[in-house]
Amino acid sequence: MDMPTYPGDVLTPGRGATRNARRLNRNDAPTITSIPVLPISQRDALPLLAALDGEVVPDGWQGGLPITYHLGPGPARVRMKASFNWDMITAYNVIARLKGSKYPDEWVIRGNHHDGWNHGAADPLSGLVATLAEAKAVAMLAKDGRRPLRTMIYAAWDAEEPGLIGSTEWAEHHANDLRKHAVAYINTDGSDRGFVNIGGSHTLERFFNQIIEEVDDPRSAITLKERRRAYELIYGDDDEKETARDRADLRIYPLGSGSDYTPFLQHLGIASANVNFGGEANDGSYHTLYDTYEHYTKFQDPGLLYGATLAKVTGRAALRLANAPRLPFEFKGLADNIALYVGELEELADSMRDEAEENNRLLDDGTYAAAINPYKSIGVPARKEAVPHFNFAPLKNALDRLQRAADQFDDAAQGHTDVSPNINNLLFTSERLLTRDAGLDGRPWYKHHVYAPGFYTGYGVKTIPGVREAIEEREYEKVAPQIAIAASVLNGMAARIELISEEIGDD
Amino acid sequence: MDMPTYPGDVLTPGRGATRNARRLNRNDAPTITSIPVLPISQRDALPLLAALDGEVVPDGWQGGLPITYHLGPGPARVRMKASFNWDMITAYNVIARLKGSKYPDEWVIRGNHHDGWNHGAADPLSGLVATLAEAKAVAMLAKDGRRPLRTMIYAAWDAEEPGLIGSTEWAEHHANDLRKHAVAYINTDGSDRGFVNIGGSHTLERFFNQIIEEVDDPRSAITLKERRRAYELIYGDDDEKETARDRADLRIYPLGSGSDYTPFLQHLGIASANVNFGGEANDGSYHTLYDTYEHYTKFQDPGLLYGATLAKVTGRAALRLANAPRLPFEFKGLADNIALYVGELEELADSMRDEAEENNRLLDDGTYAAAINPYKSIGVPARKEAVPHFNFAPLKNALDRLQRAADQFDDAAQGHTDVSPNINNLLFTSERLLTRDAGLDGRPWYKHHVYAPGFYTGYGVKTIPGVREAIEEREYEKVAPQIAIAASVLNGMAARIELISEEIGDD
Repeated sequence: MDMPTYPGDVLTPGRGATRNARRLNRNDAPTITSIPVLPISQRDALPLLAALDGEVVPDGWQGGLPITYHLGPGPARVRMKASFNWDMITAYNVIARLKGSKYPDEWVIRGNHHDGWNHGAADPLSGLVATLAEAKAVAMLAKDGRRPLRTMIYAAWDAEEPGLIGSTEWAEHHANDLRKHAVAYINTDGSDRGFVNIGGSHTLERFFNQIIEEVDDPRSAITLKERRRAYELIYGDDDEKETARDRADLRIYPLGSGSDYTPFLQHLGIASANVNFGGEANDGSYHTLYDTYEHYTKFQDPGLLYGATLAKVTGRAALRLANAPRLPFEFKGLADNIALYVGELEELADSMRDEAEENNRLLDDGTYAAAINPYKSIGVPARKEAVPHFNFAPLKNALDRLQRAADQFDDAAQGHTDVSPNINNLLFTSERLLTRDAGLDGRPWYKHHVYAPGFYTGYGVKTIPGVREAIEEREYEKVAPQIAIAASVLNGMAARIELISEEIGDD
Repeated sequence: MDMPTYPGDVLTPGRGATRNARRLNRNDAPTITSIPVLPISQRDALPLLAALDGEVVPDGWQGGLPITYHLGPGPARVRMKASFNWDMITAYNVIARLKGSKYPDEWVIRGNHHDGWNHGAADPLSGLVATLAEAKAVAMLAKDGRRPLRTMIYAAWDAEEPGLIGSTEWAEHHANDLRKHAVAYINTDGSDRGFVNIGGSHTLERFFNQIIEEVDDPRSAITLKERRRAYELIYGDDDEKETARDRADLRIYPLGSGSDYTPFLQHLGIASANVNFGGEANDGSYHTLYDTYEHYTKFQDPGLLYGATLAKVTGRAALRLANAPRLPFEFKGLADNIALYVGELEELADSMRDEAEENNRLLDDGTYAAAINPYKSIGVPARKEAVPHFNFAPLKNALDRLQRAADQFDDAAQGHTDVSPNINNLLFTSERLLTRDAGLDGRPWYKHHVYAPGFYTGYGVKTIPGVREAIEEREYEKVAPQIAIAASVLNGMAARIELISEEIGDD
């Protein structure tokens, strides 16, 4: 299925797939791909790949099987019989709700899927066990008289693997309530051991940095943040190293797709985060029959040390969001990361322009023709359309305003640890302003204009996707309108932040 | 055997291995390595590698066999029985000499080995066939009354594969005569199809550029030089692209080792070159049983088009060297390439200094310790000694003088297409001035101070090796003396060039 168009049930885009929901005719469902795709084992793949002749593949295409890979076609022919099960199957989300003692209409949502391709010990149960541990702690606190101020919702999603179906349908079905009440959504999924990875809305970047400053790595006497910073200083590229050295907050990464945060963040504009541990246990069991309890506890997280640590991180996050007198959103991290993305967009256009010029020069002066291998059938590269210069000024002006507004908010919020419900509402609904009802160009389901999975990258994120994908896909006539849209989104966010600062001042 | 110490017969370093030559005792031969090394097939390697346990290897160490590679040791143990044949075997060089009609004491030498590991169709016969074609053409010209002015020597070397033995012993045996009489040595070896590759003494860089401007690529209507330039513009790194765009002469690469030019260039200081074609036929037959005539003519050079072209390139080079009234050496290319190497040495010291500082900082502040994987046995990196600043001024002053002398020679030589035998002698013996009798530090056989195979890189070249290897091996106390040596070598060369310019003026 074509998830970058919309995830969830292929027949009910934008609507919850309840029993009697209005459904598309299967033949009209745009996300059912016309070329069937199925992962197969190396044992099944080997005879198929070995039967290909034709050119030897380019260097990067040679895979791990012990044969020389060829491009084909043929000479062997494969008769493929594709059969599909079109049954309607009920998916079961398990939802637990603890009503808030003071602000029951403000919802903190915490989720992890429960379905797995096979046994699913790592994916998803490693994350789900941590979620359940958290939920148990929250319940014990409530029994002990310390019920959260806001409503907490713990969800175990079904049917994540076949396309984020459980979470998407639930989010679509409750869309209006969620837009009104949802403070934030915190997701976990498979996790193993090593370094904490946090992705999400940058209005929560400082908040998560504070949390990982407090939780210790279970194998060493240092905090998760110190260990993560060490990781970036040693394994990062030059930019990441510089950031790890010079920036107080570690960056959280922007979310693309691949787990259940997508409907909350990108469809509904609810500030979201995704947390796991990784980097020290790459073992090849992912989505295989070997993803068992025995394998997981022997190789991936012996003693479940990092599982417990995950519960400490996301538990702190959920409880603080549920109880904070002033919700822990802030905007300097957002503005700073968006500045990075805007810089990337300018560099992207410049490097594509240089590359097109170089390509066409080498074509025109015969250099490509001169270097071509006459014994192979691969010809010279195609001519590239010249890349025009774009007016990024509206985006940069909006960014400047956003940065000023973020500074102003920091000043205004100083000392105001407790604010009115109105201000908290303005805070947690601010993420909605990064969305537009019309959604992205060609895929209206995706409404967020700062984060989206790439239309051609599957899970991989594209930031400021309207502008970025217009440039990348060489749809140059769309760039100026998309810059205008992105600028208006940032201006809208800036205006909201300015309003919040004023309200705090009047509070 | 340890070729970077000296190549050739392990028992007769510096002397020809004639029947009654004084020989080392085998136990005293420094180039017989104490760990035996033998390439084996993947079928033999697989059970040995599969029997290793221990840590999974780092990413770059995983090879092409269909198993996960482990570092070992054990648990399986291998009983290895090493047996050696220490017989003395006669090697046969085939040497043809055509006495020069006017300058019989000036020798132009052209060689290619004739032994192969197996059938040897590509390595060495593809190059040897071209050499024989050339020799035949030279003989026909002589029969036709156009005998070369200088003596031409065509050599088919034996025992190249086990360590450049045939050429090295011949060169050692005739060392005194060669130092006196040899104008240049031109080598070929295995060659297939694609782009012309020329390595060698940079005093011949312009000369070879002139030749490849005249010979056409056999598959296209452009010259070899145009096709090679296209290659560098498309496949080169940024520096190579810039050079290919902006420099009139394409660079020829500096010679390390790996074929029979080594004794001539690096032991005797005879200006040398190595020429072949490649880049479009990497096929895995190198040094295997599959290196047959059928394979070669089907896959590597169908129609032997590039073999004929090779003979055109090296034949032109040999005949012009044999007949030129003024030998075609010049020095601006040399100075320009040495400037590049001196720049590299400064960058090397700077980057090693930065790297050591970074390494020690990450050790001292605990970053490495924080990022270490506690489940693996690989510890933090070792502390690195701080890299001092070096005084490169003597080398740069010598380089400046060399550059001025090269310019002066170009001016002086202008219009002087015919010069006296004395000037030609000063020209062709100039390469000797880049050597020193004492040789390189720790390996006196290697006497050239601009080009050497790296002590730890086997065939891979190290330019200005005395200085470069002292820095790389962190023998910092040796750097200043090696800079002084290299500077004196360059000053000696500059003085020779100044002398030649004066003599031309007086001619």
